[in-house]
Amino acid sequence: MRMTDIIAKKRDGGRLTLEEIRFVVRGTADGSLPDYQLSALLMAIFLRGMDEKETAALTLEMAASGQVADLSAIPGVKVDKHSTGGVGDLTTLVALPLAAACGVKVPKMSGRALGHTGGTLDKLWSIPGCTTELSMERFIAQVQRIGCALVGQTGDFAPVDKRLYALRDVTATVESLPLIVSSILSKKLAAGCDAMVLDVKTGDGAFMRTLAGSKRLAEEMVKIAGLAGKRAVALVTDMDQPLGSCIGNALEVREAAEILRGLRRGRARELCLTVAGCMVELGLGLGAEPARRLAEEALDSGAGADKLRQLIQAQDGDARVVDQPERLPSAPETLDVEAGEQGYVDRLDCRALGLAVRELGAGRERAEDAVDPAVGMELFVERGSRVQKGQALARIHAKDLEQAKTCAQALLAAVHLQQEPPEPSPLVLARIG
Amino acid sequence: MRMTDIIAKKRDGGRLTLEEIRFVVRGTADGSLPDYQLSALLMAIFLRGMDEKETAALTLEMAASGQVADLSAIPGVKVDKHSTGGVGDLTTLVALPLAAACGVKVPKMSGRALGHTGGTLDKLWSIPGCTTELSMERFIAQVQRIGCALVGQTGDFAPVDKRLYALRDVTATVESLPLIVSSILSKKLAAGCDAMVLDVKTGDGAFMRTLAGSKRLAEEMVKIAGLAGKRAVALVTDMDQPLGSCIGNALEVREAAEILRGLRRGRARELCLTVAGCMVELGLGLGAEPARRLAEEALDSGAGADKLRQLIQAQDGDARVVDQPERLPSAPETLDVEAGEQGYVDRLDCRALGLAVRELGAGRERAEDAVDPAVGMELFVERGSRVQKGQALARIHAKDLEQAKTCAQALLAAVHLQQEPPEPSPLVLARIG
Repeated sequence: MRMTDIIAKKRDGGRLTLEEIRFVVRGTADGSLPDYQLSALLMAIFLRGMDEKETAALTLEMAASGQVADLSAIPGVKVDKHSTGGVGDLTTLVALPLAAACGVKVPKMSGRALGHTGGTLDKLWSIPGCTTELSMERFIAQVQRIGCALVGQTGDFAPVDKRLYALRDVTATVESLPLIVSSILSKKLAAGCDAMVLDVKTGDGAFMRTLAGSKRLAEEMVKIAGLAGKRAVALVTDMDQPLGSCIGNALEVREAAEILRGLRRGRARELCLTVAGCMVELGLGLGAEPARRLAEEALDSGAGADKLRQLIQAQDGDARVVDQPERLPSAPETLDVEAGEQGYVDRLDCRALGLAVRELGAGRERAEDAVDPAVGMELFVERGSRVQKGQALARIHAKDLEQAKTCAQALLAAVHLQQEPPEPSPLVLARIG
Repeated sequence: MRMTDIIAKKRDGGRLTLEEIRFVVRGTADGSLPDYQLSALLMAIFLRGMDEKETAALTLEMAASGQVADLSAIPGVKVDKHSTGGVGDLTTLVALPLAAACGVKVPKMSGRALGHTGGTLDKLWSIPGCTTELSMERFIAQVQRIGCALVGQTGDFAPVDKRLYALRDVTATVESLPLIVSSILSKKLAAGCDAMVLDVKTGDGAFMRTLAGSKRLAEEMVKIAGLAGKRAVALVTDMDQPLGSCIGNALEVREAAEILRGLRRGRARELCLTVAGCMVELGLGLGAEPARRLAEEALDSGAGADKLRQLIQAQDGDARVVDQPERLPSAPETLDVEAGEQGYVDRLDCRALGLAVRELGAGRERAEDAVDPAVGMELFVERGSRVQKGQALARIHAKDLEQAKTCAQALLAAVHLQQEPPEPSPLVLARIG
């Protein structure tokens, strides 16, 4: 088998066989295929596409290219959760303890923040003492004991995805449906769970900006997961504005704890309950409504908050942060940003807000960038809010006043007011699976 | 300017600006762009194409990426000649002396054999003593003195083409019209001539196998050459069978000399006169008919043969080979291959014959392969020949009997007989420009 023949076949719109896909994945894993041939193939796949059979084969071969977690020691249906990445997206911090509190087993491996979106690992790292590097034994034992664990996927999981993703990033071949699907799902398959809830963000602040594109991605992922023998539910959810009120690592941990303690309502709480409901559905084999009710009860009873305390403690963190947010890192400077005029909030430019908070030091542009856990932004308004001139729109937490002022400028440019209240926009736009 | 933006633009079918193309070519020349980004761009160009303006810009930038020959010391219109490569294609060895004998200045830089096709340099190297490595001063002085010179394009001419071609070869992006055109013409522009005759081979033994594809290539090359300020004439010529009777380096030199000495007629002679006529047309500014007549007179008078003797002598070769072919290297074994049945030759599988002769050692698979000047094949038949059972179809010249027998098998498989005489096929299928 010759790589040039495989490239030529895809270039001409042909379907790659399982053997051809295996040849490519193995040659990527063992380094025998050079980058320049892989990038030519990636561009051919970008422009010619892949059908479901090809995508499923690519996903399975990529998943099998490295370490695969063996979670068979954990009884029951293991449920994973994945988000395509958003701004102010604290869903995992709330939904995971809620589902575990309902009895679902959630051994979750997470990624780190990149670009304008945040990452769950960075949020956990803002909790004093908290680690996300557990040995596989400790990881499994923790899930056996308290039902959940949240670690970094740091081992040799789906190494082919690492190499291909790095190439796609520098060859303009990221936004390809089969390549996105195989990248996400190969890591999920290697992580070893039985079922998964996929939160596909859509809108200005999401990786996929259009609803049609996000729906296609959601449908394709559920289909390919099914072909790989995994039950999956995908939700297409709004990312035209930040999900929660807070953007920034410690701030989002505080907000998550407050949601679980019953102190906050709103969109973030609603999505967390929906996601947790789906996880309960898959994990316990319940219908959608009773599953959702169970998640709500876990929140209302405080069982979810308690599970978060257990999770933090099990991972060496200071669980008192759940009830005493002042124990989280705080920034030396805060600055309240006031509205220059009155009106209704029509649009919050989600990507711009994410980038502004990254500029404060809360995120990273490159994988090796350091992250400041304390900085960020608390929004006091959301889409549809009525605002008076001089009213505080947000509070910026920064390491100095100059950075805070730069962020305030970006915030004012990102908040669009109008005289009429805007049409309400739904939070969950579609459910697939 | 970022390479990923340029790749993405072409990926989405956009037109690259002159500045973007310049960025790519310079980054290829100075090594700042990695192979994997170039190969992604090459695949995007392959699948999305380039318009004339882009192709012209790419060609000119590639031509300017290295050394450019300054031929201004040679008076008059300098005429180049290029063939896309064929089997038994001795045209340059005949047309170049003929055009020079008519007074045209022909400072020609040639390539070497690759794949199943032969190269003019390899043919010259079969002449004892003959060199194709002349200094630029000697090259120019020779053209001033005798009107022609034939050297290897060995300097730093169009170095970007070398890098891109090597990448295209291993990423299935060779057969792209704008990439082929820019590759050929950038080297021709760097070679410094004012006008050129392009022999675009078509058919089974050619790089472009279909007439439509060959015509498009011919049209595109004439157009792009015009945009680059060079007059060009392209001929689309048949390569469904070997052009001459001989395939192999020394054998083709012998055949070329015999054509110039008036000892051979047929298709090879006819194409040489046509090409030489076009060169005279461009070089002396004559109409097509008087130019062709001048070329015929140079052949009939022996002036062309004399020019070949001068050319070989000027390049340190033994000019006596023109009249005494026994002075050329000869192979230790010859084997005549006889027809197993009677009939008319319907088809000579040109690519198979080229590869069979390469197997004898006459050509090269990789650029570093050594070439045997003596081996090859003399065909005694052509398409349409009537053959008796037991009649010799060809004589194989080989370094041992075993190789000769293997070649004989390939020959018998490549010669297709039928009972009815086939329709005659034209030699020159189109002229453009």
